[in-house]
Amino acid sequence: MPSKQKIVVIGGVACGPKAASRIKRLNPDAEVTIIEKGELLSYAGCGLPFYISGEVESHNELMATPTGVVRDTFFFHKVKGIEIKNHTLVKRVDRKNKCIDAISILSGANVEIPYDKLILAVGSKTQVPPIEGTDLNGVNFLQTVEDARKIRNESGALKGKKAVIIGGGLIGIEVTEAFKKQGMEITVIEMLDKVMGQLLDPEIAYHVHKEFAANGIPLKLSERVLKINGDDRGNVKSVTTDKGEYPADMVLISVGVRPNIQLAQNMELEIGETGAIKVDANLRTSDPDIYAGGDCAENINRITGKPMYAPMGSTANKHGRIIADNICGIDSRSKGVCGTAICKLFNVNVARTGLTEKMAADLGYDTITVLNPSPDRAHFLKEAKLIIIKLVVDRNTKKLLGAQIVGPGDVAKRMEVAVSNIASGGTVIDIAQYDLAYAPPFSPAMDNIITAANIAENKLNGFGKSYTPMEVKAKIDNNEDFIFLDVRSPQEFEEMRIEDPRVKLIPLGKLRESLDQLPKEKEIVAFCKISLRGYEAERLLTGTGYPNVSYMDGGVVCWPFEKFVAG
Amino acid sequence: MPSKQKIVVIGGVACGPKAASRIKRLNPDAEVTIIEKGELLSYAGCGLPFYISGEVESHNELMATPTGVVRDTFFFHKVKGIEIKNHTLVKRVDRKNKCIDAISILSGANVEIPYDKLILAVGSKTQVPPIEGTDLNGVNFLQTVEDARKIRNESGALKGKKAVIIGGGLIGIEVTEAFKKQGMEITVIEMLDKVMGQLLDPEIAYHVHKEFAANGIPLKLSERVLKINGDDRGNVKSVTTDKGEYPADMVLISVGVRPNIQLAQNMELEIGETGAIKVDANLRTSDPDIYAGGDCAENINRITGKPMYAPMGSTANKHGRIIADNICGIDSRSKGVCGTAICKLFNVNVARTGLTEKMAADLGYDTITVLNPSPDRAHFLKEAKLIIIKLVVDRNTKKLLGAQIVGPGDVAKRMEVAVSNIASGGTVIDIAQYDLAYAPPFSPAMDNIITAANIAENKLNGFGKSYTPMEVKAKIDNNEDFIFLDVRSPQEFEEMRIEDPRVKLIPLGKLRESLDQLPKEKEIVAFCKISLRGYEAERLLTGTGYPNVSYMDGGVVCWPFEKFVAG
Repeated sequence: MPSKQKIVVIGGVACGPKAASRIKRLNPDAEVTIIEKGELLSYAGCGLPFYISGEVESHNELMATPTGVVRDTFFFHKVKGIEIKNHTLVKRVDRKNKCIDAISILSGANVEIPYDKLILAVGSKTQVPPIEGTDLNGVNFLQTVEDARKIRNESGALKGKKAVIIGGGLIGIEVTEAFKKQGMEITVIEMLDKVMGQLLDPEIAYHVHKEFAANGIPLKLSERVLKINGDDRGNVKSVTTDKGEYPADMVLISVGVRPNIQLAQNMELEIGETGAIKVDANLRTSDPDIYAGGDCAENINRITGKPMYAPMGSTANKHGRIIADNICGIDSRSKGVCGTAICKLFNVNVARTGLTEKMAADLGYDTITVLNPSPDRAHFLKEAKLIIIKLVVDRNTKKLLGAQIVGPGDVAKRMEVAVSNIASGGTVIDIAQYDLAYAPPFSPAMDNIITAANIAENKLNGFGKSYTPMEVKAKIDNNEDFIFLDVRSPQEFEEMRIEDPRVKLIPLGKLRESLDQLPKEKEIVAFCKISLRGYEAERLLTGTGYPNVSYMDGGVVCWPFEKFVAG
Repeated sequence: MPSKQKIVVIGGVACGPKAASRIKRLNPDAEVTIIEKGELLSYAGCGLPFYISGEVESHNELMATPTGVVRDTFFFHKVKGIEIKNHTLVKRVDRKNKCIDAISILSGANVEIPYDKLILAVGSKTQVPPIEGTDLNGVNFLQTVEDARKIRNESGALKGKKAVIIGGGLIGIEVTEAFKKQGMEITVIEMLDKVMGQLLDPEIAYHVHKEFAANGIPLKLSERVLKINGDDRGNVKSVTTDKGEYPADMVLISVGVRPNIQLAQNMELEIGETGAIKVDANLRTSDPDIYAGGDCAENINRITGKPMYAPMGSTANKHGRIIADNICGIDSRSKGVCGTAICKLFNVNVARTGLTEKMAADLGYDTITVLNPSPDRAHFLKEAKLIIIKLVVDRNTKKLLGAQIVGPGDVAKRMEVAVSNIASGGTVIDIAQYDLAYAPPFSPAMDNIITAANIAENKLNGFGKSYTPMEVKAKIDNNEDFIFLDVRSPQEFEEMRIEDPRVKLIPLGKLRESLDQLPKEKEIVAFCKISLRGYEAERLLTGTGYPNVSYMDGGVVCWPFEKFVAG
């Protein structure tokens, strides 16, 4: 490695500054330059919704280190010894002569910057749907600090006005809460039949949908935006879908992002099947002197081993470190990602990783699934809140393929255990013996994820036949004949119940003495509030010689359809 | 397996009922009996401090399932088909004839109960220190619901009165908070120089000590109780230590528990080196028809592979399941425990797993340690709170030996990742690539535990020499000559600083231009608030040719000694 190696980083948000900083720490002699087309560097892009909501007062806070040091041009130069060329646009990269041809946006001057190693950290761009009206005043996207400042200034003035959010993904959900905090009236329009697109199975997304309703926010699912309409001064006034028209003083479009690959294409670097820049495990592109990381680069899915596009600030930071290592002679390799994501909507948290049940089925996996609804800490504490864990497990390898967790309680902690388990290469059953941290304010004695792993083990071993709520609903919709056996107490039944002629109430404590009410030739599907008693009932009836008994995963709590609720 | 196998469980709190219930689920034909000397079954012993505090109103709540079903004798009999013999004392077990000789405490009648398989789940008993006065009125222990009811009745009447807690372990800490919530005036006396005994290293325990002080609770460390004094009516009036006397209207003794092994000893079962009942991985005792689990049984330490005594409700439940499996013909094996523990004291949470630095040193491990103090979520959110992660890593295998986490923020989530990593059998460096769930309300973009793993990797690779705060303090106490270089801003320095003549302030941004103030021949130890800038300074100076530079782990935040704080 030459002692005065010239490293150039294109892109100054997450991966780029991370790589540049670590290179200088590992090799203080390296000459490191960051080229950024905007003004700002190293800001927390994921924090933009919290700046819009007003929770973060100044955008400077998004650029600070945890101890409050603002990472501006001065900081990078003075503290880190990194040269910053912001307001600078790269026009062309001459790979043969290893030279970058750029232009200063402010002065118009041309700059030539030679490199030994080049890092592309050029990020992603928001997708613009191919409809009329996306360029009207009041139609916004959210990717840069500038975008957020524009929205916040407008939304300050728009208090009480109407906003339409197009797209119910992670950004759409976070901005819904931000707009609500700013006192706006919001409608969310999502093309698919659930929020977060393919990231959630329907019975998990259901609980997020309920939270929109609980906060009085219309969520229009399976509705396609046809057109954004403006007035004669070019200001947005409404959004037309295939089902109606919604008045709008402001529109936010959040229908996903795509990798920035224009420059890489011009340089004739290889583009992967996902449309992002192709890199190897060392994050090297098809040119061995050029690395790519963050939102512009492809990842490997840790579960399937296949390429995936999963732009995420946390991954971008990991990429920065890996690239720096490799440039400084350390053979660091990315192990890929699981597609983990988490967000909150008011009082509901939702997290996911790996494959959904649908993704797994589409990929041909033979799976079992688990639904475990239970309080997130000792149930006798008032702070205890529900979380619902869904696991998707490979029946053959017994490995966890994916997890989804939703509810008002602490979903994040259990998600981290699922993610750690996937990374371990072990089976889902291993989780059952993790010595997790137990005390009543933090978890039940058997942590929710341990119970979920135990249920998975039971299912893998064939103890207790069960149906998912979706399967039971399909049986009902097919007019199948079975006893839908509710084993809760009469009081619980009065308060909330599934209304269907198949439903029969026999409290678990009375089941042994009520067998005459249950014909042996009929199929029986038992359930309770969370299907702990439902499982007991299945075991009891099967043990008594009933030939066709199962329980319904997750009980009434996980029934993602209409149900009767008293009062 | 005979179809009407007779299974007898001795002990009805956690492991016993768990095993009994699962046996009935796996083998409904089995005849399962639980013998319990007390009245109550299957209660959450760990919830007792929260019943004392009044957070849990009725002790029945401690006996309920998460859906509110009370697990009383009726429940076990009627719902689970398990026979309960409570108020029943086992006198003798005839292993040869497989028969239990018991006595009904209420009627005085003798009972003979034959068994095919026997499960000992007889728990632990609180230790009674060998001092005078432990039998006075007002001197309490805390292990059973009866203990808790007695304390709560007294403490209700004792509002504003004085309590002395002997023992600063997990129970002592939880009861401190409970007593405070009941309006009592508390003094805590601990024989060792820190709370939680051997479970924490001193620089972590320091932050718990500060929380006692912040809540106005005298914590008397390194103080030995000599005697509990009573008045002439046999009521407690004070506690005498080797350093003073403390008036007391009530005393709680919480100096640990020991396994109940009397019965096992009488049965001539093998007792392990820890003093608990010796079991194999299947939790079988030295008699293959007798199993033992929960607080009476020995565990294997997952890190050292050696026996350890680690009574914990979470482990007891795991044991119950494993024993049930084995009795029903499934070869389930315990993988051991890490000694994980967690508790909260007012606004501080503290968790630990595996080996402390001291334990690891005593066992001869060559370790590196990490101290990472940082906010538990995106620093720009007002909800962000500090957590300090300490990792102890085996320098040779790069495996995590232990973790301790303390602070007002979310320590539990990161502890679960550490525990999962230890269980995975991989190295600490693996954590750096866990695709943990990131969004600003849940974590920084680089989660705290990922940053800690990255620091560990740097240290394992020899990047950046560092000292722990304890090592720096030892250098100071040895009157060593070095520059203790604070690279924070003058404002931060005014607000809080370490006061020592070696301390020299040069803000990081001015370091490059201030090298003339730093003689190359002197040793330099750099630090900042959390040692992010301290590490940068070390890199910068080392890169500039300074031969003897290091940084101090964790910065001012982790300095566990007196420091100047303005105002």
